[in-house]
Amino acid sequence: MAPKSEDVILPDRKLEMILSMKGGNGKGSYANNSQAQAKHARSMLHLLKETLDIIQLQPGSELPFTVADLGCSCGNNTLYIVDVIIKHMIERYEAMGYVPPPEFSVFFSDLPSNDFNTLFQLLPPISKGSMEECLATDNHRSYFAAGVPGSFYRRLFPTRSIDFFHSAFSLHWLSQVPESVQDKRSSAYNRGRVSIHNANQEAANAYRSQFQGDLAAFLKARSQEMKRGGSMFLVCLGRTSPDPTDQGGPGLLFGTHFQDSWNDLVLEGLITSEKRDAFNIPVYASSLQEFREVVETNGSFRINRLEIFKGGSPLVVSQPDDAIEVGRALANSCRSVVGVLVDVHIGEQLSEELFSRVEQRGSSHAKELLEQLQFYHIVASLSFK
Amino acid sequence: MAPKSEDVILPDRKLEMILSMKGGNGKGSYANNSQAQAKHARSMLHLLKETLDIIQLQPGSELPFTVADLGCSCGNNTLYIVDVIIKHMIERYEAMGYVPPPEFSVFFSDLPSNDFNTLFQLLPPISKGSMEECLATDNHRSYFAAGVPGSFYRRLFPTRSIDFFHSAFSLHWLSQVPESVQDKRSSAYNRGRVSIHNANQEAANAYRSQFQGDLAAFLKARSQEMKRGGSMFLVCLGRTSPDPTDQGGPGLLFGTHFQDSWNDLVLEGLITSEKRDAFNIPVYASSLQEFREVVETNGSFRINRLEIFKGGSPLVVSQPDDAIEVGRALANSCRSVVGVLVDVHIGEQLSEELFSRVEQRGSSHAKELLEQLQFYHIVASLSFK
Repeated sequence: MAPKSEDVILPDRKLEMILSMKGGNGKGSYANNSQAQAKHARSMLHLLKETLDIIQLQPGSELPFTVADLGCSCGNNTLYIVDVIIKHMIERYEAMGYVPPPEFSVFFSDLPSNDFNTLFQLLPPISKGSMEECLATDNHRSYFAAGVPGSFYRRLFPTRSIDFFHSAFSLHWLSQVPESVQDKRSSAYNRGRVSIHNANQEAANAYRSQFQGDLAAFLKARSQEMKRGGSMFLVCLGRTSPDPTDQGGPGLLFGTHFQDSWNDLVLEGLITSEKRDAFNIPVYASSLQEFREVVETNGSFRINRLEIFKGGSPLVVSQPDDAIEVGRALANSCRSVVGVLVDVHIGEQLSEELFSRVEQRGSSHAKELLEQLQFYHIVASLSFK
Repeated sequence: MAPKSEDVILPDRKLEMILSMKGGNGKGSYANNSQAQAKHARSMLHLLKETLDIIQLQPGSELPFTVADLGCSCGNNTLYIVDVIIKHMIERYEAMGYVPPPEFSVFFSDLPSNDFNTLFQLLPPISKGSMEECLATDNHRSYFAAGVPGSFYRRLFPTRSIDFFHSAFSLHWLSQVPESVQDKRSSAYNRGRVSIHNANQEAANAYRSQFQGDLAAFLKARSQEMKRGGSMFLVCLGRTSPDPTDQGGPGLLFGTHFQDSWNDLVLEGLITSEKRDAFNIPVYASSLQEFREVVETNGSFRINRLEIFKGGSPLVVSQPDDAIEVGRALANSCRSVVGVLVDVHIGEQLSEELFSRVEQRGSSHAKELLEQLQFYHIVASLSFK
């Protein structure tokens, strides 16, 4: 018999102290469920390189060229992207005759709850004595590396210290669930739902305000940290509908089978409806217009590109005809990103119950899922004015 | 029944990929067994501050004042020391009228196998918006923080990027056990022993060469990374005897009851004598003279102070009359520093057997242990020429 949720003590901890992609290397880990993110990132490499090309190089500077990846998580994706960035910059320096290029320094940043240990163990050793050449030999890295724990909605780095910021698939995570959405007395209370997909307009508006406030704080911090001439490449979940209660792909991921599975637990008496209603996924897929408003209000950055792209499905499936596998992919996909939050909210055993229902429900709607579950990404290429 | 060691597969991994103080918060963890190190560090604060006072300040520089702690481990000791350093530097800046002081940036460095997750979760949040003042409010930090995974026997930081290096209780860890010490055909083969305390002269000489070569590599890397005018405060285990086979306190810690407990496992048939002989603790307590030779040969650093101090006992004991507690303290003390290496060498179950014998043997010699187990520390205060 599954335990009742009343047995579980909900720690009073702030979101930024608990949020993380699922660490380690298990089947529900982010490291093993981020192939879709990897594929989407690779499809945007030309846009990344375009943003690297607008950085104003400082030949003769004794300072290293400094890159920060914000929301790095613990997987191989961040290491792959950083390699692309460093190689491209070395080529730029060489093409302009700045040989040898400067040293490179890379900061991998995420919340303190991120599994930095796994990331650090994946990091190849530094190339021996060849930092002057800055060319990576096989299985070695050609940059100094550091991990930076903290929220990117606040300051992370010294003033004017970073040449290039990269952030992929992270800015749709809010710094917190808006208080009104969790306040029963508020018209924005998100009764009956665990995401704002198909929620009431007030709840969705509270999420939009939170997203825009968070993005404003992000841009303010970066405008202090970025070196003159630097640039920034941002990718996050976006939506094509102007209506925030239509969250598109993320809405389908969290607002249908995942939502129904929470309802199952309530109907079966495993949790109360209040317990379900107290859970809200702190993810917001912004519209392009909402994103643009914040960048323009901040005013520190020139917009080189701000577009929305179809990113494809988040599901990692090798046999699309195998409904069981599709259901499992849906459960793993949900779990790798919100599993840690679910565990904290209802405990690991009930979390197990929940995701097994997501898997079953996903299997019953496999074809539909594969056809309809599509992510859109906002891509922003910004340079410091 | 305890498992035979033949069941255990010894991974072919380099020391720097596995060495770490015991992570987490358990009874054998370094976080819970480093009070002695904390006490020793606090007794040397005046020497630390003296070394901070010789740093040449760069008023008007737009760069942050940058500190690196090398061999930070995962406990509170490193955070305490860093607070002392930052507060002292703020006072120095203020005393000289450089108000506000610059921003501060701190790098916590250790091997990739270190438990950075625990360290990052102990780190207080950054003070909000007051980085300009650089004064920590309660439970906040007034510096930017980053973790740097890597061996300090190689480059870790960009050229001329660090103002102050701190390293406490780490430089006695060799980068590797010398190959000859593990080679049966060599006269330096360390037959019968797990440390070089009371070992043959050739094994001890091989350790000395390894230590001096490692320290030379350490100083070379730091001389590239340190800013002009910077300084460095180093503390590591030292010995008062000129003879390296008399390792003093660390010799007593690893060369008596711990050694005898390995012999127990051999006599009881739980491991072969070859298995024991293949285990060598990669720790070397240097003499002051051996240390000085390397610093002088390197030639990049002015020696402000190079001395050996009596540091006290490594044992954490609240009831010195309680022999059981003394034995447990001995076992925990050994385990928190070499437990991870023992686990890798003979597996966790045999490791449990071993440390329970250390505990028993320690209890039988409690009085003697408390009287005789004393550590000496080499303290080096160096500035960049």
